Amino acid sequence: MTSAYQQLTRTFQRLARFGHLSAIAGWDMQTMMPPAGSQARGEALAELSVLQHQILTDSRMEAWLEAAQQEALNDVEQANLLEMRRAWQQAALLPAALVEAKSIAGSRCEHAWRQQRPANDWQGFAANLQEVVRLSREEAEIRAQAAGCSRYDALLDLYEPGMTSAQLDATFGDLLQWLPDLLERVVAKQAAEPVDMPLGPFPVAAQRQLGLQLMKLLGFDFNAGRLDVSAHPFCGGVPEDVRITTRYNENEFVSAMMGVIHETGHACYEQNLPKTWRGQPVALARSTAIHESQSLFFEMQLARSAPFLQHILPLVSAQMGEQPALTPGNFVRLNQRVKRGFIRVDADEVSYPLHVILRYEIERALIGGDIEVEDIPALWDEKMQRYLGLDTQGNYRDGCMQDIHWTDGAFGYFPTYTLGAMYAAQLFQAVRRALPQLDKQIAAGELQPIFDWLSQNIWRHGSRFPTAQLIAQASGEDLNPQHFRRHLEQRYL
Amino acid sequence: MTSAYQQLTRTFQRLARFGHLSAIAGWDMQTMMPPAGSQARGEALAELSVLQHQILTDSRMEAWLEAAQQEALNDVEQANLLEMRRAWQQAALLPAALVEAKSIAGSRCEHAWRQQRPANDWQGFAANLQEVVRLSREEAEIRAQAAGCSRYDALLDLYEPGMTSAQLDATFGDLLQWLPDLLERVVAKQAAEPVDMPLGPFPVAAQRQLGLQLMKLLGFDFNAGRLDVSAHPFCGGVPEDVRITTRYNENEFVSAMMGVIHETGHACYEQNLPKTWRGQPVALARSTAIHESQSLFFEMQLARSAPFLQHILPLVSAQMGEQPALTPGNFVRLNQRVKRGFIRVDADEVSYPLHVILRYEIERALIGGDIEVEDIPALWDEKMQRYLGLDTQGNYRDGCMQDIHWTDGAFGYFPTYTLGAMYAAQLFQAVRRALPQLDKQIAAGELQPIFDWLSQNIWRHGSRFPTAQLIAQASGEDLNPQHFRRHLEQRYL
Ligand SMILES: [Zn+2]
Ligand SMILES: [Zn+2]
Repeated sequence: MTSAYQQLTRTFQRLARFGHLSAIAGWDMQTMMPPAGSQARGEALAELSVLQHQILTDSRMEAWLEAAQQEALNDVEQANLLEMRRAWQQAALLPAALVEAKSIAGSRCEHAWRQQRPANDWQGFAANLQEVVRLSREEAEIRAQAAGCSRYDALLDLYEPGMTSAQLDATFGDLLQWLPDLLERVVAKQAAEPVDMPLGPFPVAAQRQLGLQLMKLLGFDFNAGRLDVSAHPFCGGVPEDVRITTRYNENEFVSAMMGVIHETGHACYEQNLPKTWRGQPVALARSTAIHESQSLFFEMQLARSAPFLQHILPLVSAQMGEQPALTPGNFVRLNQRVKRGFIRVDADEVSYPLHVILRYEIERALIGGDIEVEDIPALWDEKMQRYLGLDTQGNYRDGCMQDIHWTDGAFGYFPTYTLGAMYAAQLFQAVRRALPQLDKQIAAGELQPIFDWLSQNIWRHGSRFPTAQLIAQASGEDLNPQHFRRHLEQRYL
Repeated sequence: MTSAYQQLTRTFQRLARFGHLSAIAGWDMQTMMPPAGSQARGEALAELSVLQHQILTDSRMEAWLEAAQQEALNDVEQANLLEMRRAWQQAALLPAALVEAKSIAGSRCEHAWRQQRPANDWQGFAANLQEVVRLSREEAEIRAQAAGCSRYDALLDLYEPGMTSAQLDATFGDLLQWLPDLLERVVAKQAAEPVDMPLGPFPVAAQRQLGLQLMKLLGFDFNAGRLDVSAHPFCGGVPEDVRITTRYNENEFVSAMMGVIHETGHACYEQNLPKTWRGQPVALARSTAIHESQSLFFEMQLARSAPFLQHILPLVSAQMGEQPALTPGNFVRLNQRVKRGFIRVDADEVSYPLHVILRYEIERALIGGDIEVEDIPALWDEKMQRYLGLDTQGNYRDGCMQDIHWTDGAFGYFPTYTLGAMYAAQLFQAVRRALPQLDKQIAAGELQPIFDWLSQNIWRHGSRFPTAQLIAQASGEDLNPQHFRRHLEQRYL
């Protein structure tokens, strides 16, 4: 007889297979597809997503989930069942009409935003965003009722299961105590340390070659993945075949180099997820925040450290040509430059959390119903002034219209960037305790012990443990922003 | 109320969307996928193919097909309904167990063949092939009963609907009357006309550039397609986004050049299929043989003609460097060389049909039960001797083990190559009648009138007409091998 749990594993394996096709067709759309394929691809992917939703919300699913809880399951199976229930609930809670309305409103808002942002057209954008917010509140209300939590917490849980706005308030409140002042001091200090900018052009072929060499150094398995080009860099594909992308600018190579390193962090996590449970939810990455912790571990903790930068400088010089900017001291300063700016995605690791906290405060109030869309610009201006000392009045395009997230109703996503940065710092300290010769090893390019540690403590667990437990097991304590503070102080002061 | 015909069009649109994903994931597997992705990709595509089969054999399908025949349908809709019924019948006739057994036996036979062919291991191969033949006969028997025809004709119909072995016997019989003798004379004539071989190396980048230029000349729409590399060249993707491939050898550029032109013929057919009926069976290419007629029209009729070769020689010289072999006379001789050989895929257009007829005669007898697998080598040797004057005794690897088709049970496919060649010759003569200045136009690179004619007479019709009608409308007569004969005589004697 087939147990309910077996019915579920079969169903989720089927879903994983369709997810595989969706991931590859989605990657192709961003990297390979010629323009005329766009409409047919969109329709094909939408058809697949309808099918995936049908399978996940099949009428037998609830009974299987109930019955499986009575079956004899080992620890991993129980963790898998928990993830199955999460996936089912996420899909099944919302009425189909709301899902469709949200998808249409999101597409419309995003599509129009692509023109409205360059045109600085806040009024036009606000009209579409209102509809997205209205539907996101509806979604949040339904999820909140089911989970017995606040609206915003219900959305947050989609990206970082178990996280609450109470914990974020505490953690981000801690950061706000010391980060603006730290930023001030770092900027003042660096004002006295001029940086030579590398002189291009830097041919795409050389940049790609350097990217591939760095991926190799960082343990990327080319037997199970690729590097390509797309307008917006991402890490896609499936754990068996991870596809990362970057974009090249021949005038400047550091962005693509660090972008490749960042995506390689995401990729190594994917490539080293547990193989035995493949196709099951428990084998998937833990959460958006843990994913980002791995990319930021690679980029911020490891790759922007002086020992790592000194180790790779010969590779960089070989591809880009020796020049005054590519001396050890200047190369480190170049990659550790801190600068207040309007744009989140261009921000360094010191100012980045302030961009995130600003958005978190606004979106939490927006979903909670404390503010409306028309209140956003004034709040944005005020917070940018307070946290970053910048004037954004009237500059919507580089202010509250700069991100894609809200256009699609992805409220609750922003905090994961800074959670990831804090997890990364905390994990790196744990690695440092485990490897007393860490800096020497990094300077010598002996990175395998680091990857072994990450594999042992994070990668191989997939979604087996809740985030809090995963972090506590790996680092010996709960999320603690003091590790992030210490990291910033030691690197920048 | 939704009519039965509307139910059907919805179902087939859904199938087309899933087919889109299958085509792109299949293309990716051949061109982009790293090795470790192979198993997961195979499983994902198999899951999709199970789904497609389920949709196509849905229990309501037969009733819809019956009911739609009573509904008021226009000509195109009626043609579409006919194609729907064909597709349904192809999928629904066979018991699921047979489909699965055939798929397993085919995979096993093909997989082992990849080792057995280089090892010249006929005995090992024969054991697997017997099982494939047994299951193919079973399939043929079921299809033959339903269609009221012979077993072999039932399989032939899968690749060239409406074609029969009676017509093939007549047509191929005609060819056998004059082709071996013609081949003899051409070989003798060319013995007195030495050819200079181009001296390489020919860098891949230059070969790719030439390929792209020729695709452009031949009307390929790069807004709706791509050129990539794969081990076995093919034309894949979907009409909105056609993906052709080639492979490069730096010692020799003509094969890749002609390969690209061949696949461009397939691609232009796909890109110019009717847009109004997109997603419906009637909008698809007519048949395997008509598809091949378009690639052979491009490659054999057009591109190996002296005016075309003279027109492209400057492009070729610009990429490959001027050299004695790239003078007008030699370049034509090089591309019109006829040579008896063991290998079908390397054959010129004069000897190619003899390779096909040999296979046709063997596979027809095999499916009919007149011979068994162990009889194949002796028959192969005898026919190779008779048709091509070559001794293949004991050389299975370059004899009856050289092709992949039988390993997968694709009996009935081979004749479409030569049907395609004959259709191509017949259509080219029709173009010549329509365009009295044809050779001058080709020599001047004015090819648009040819594409317009093909679009008007073949491409835009999709599967609206049966092949025989399509050919008769386009050329004014039924399939007539004399056009092929005249073409060969005029070019080679
Ligand atoms: Zn990231
Ligand atoms: Zn072909």
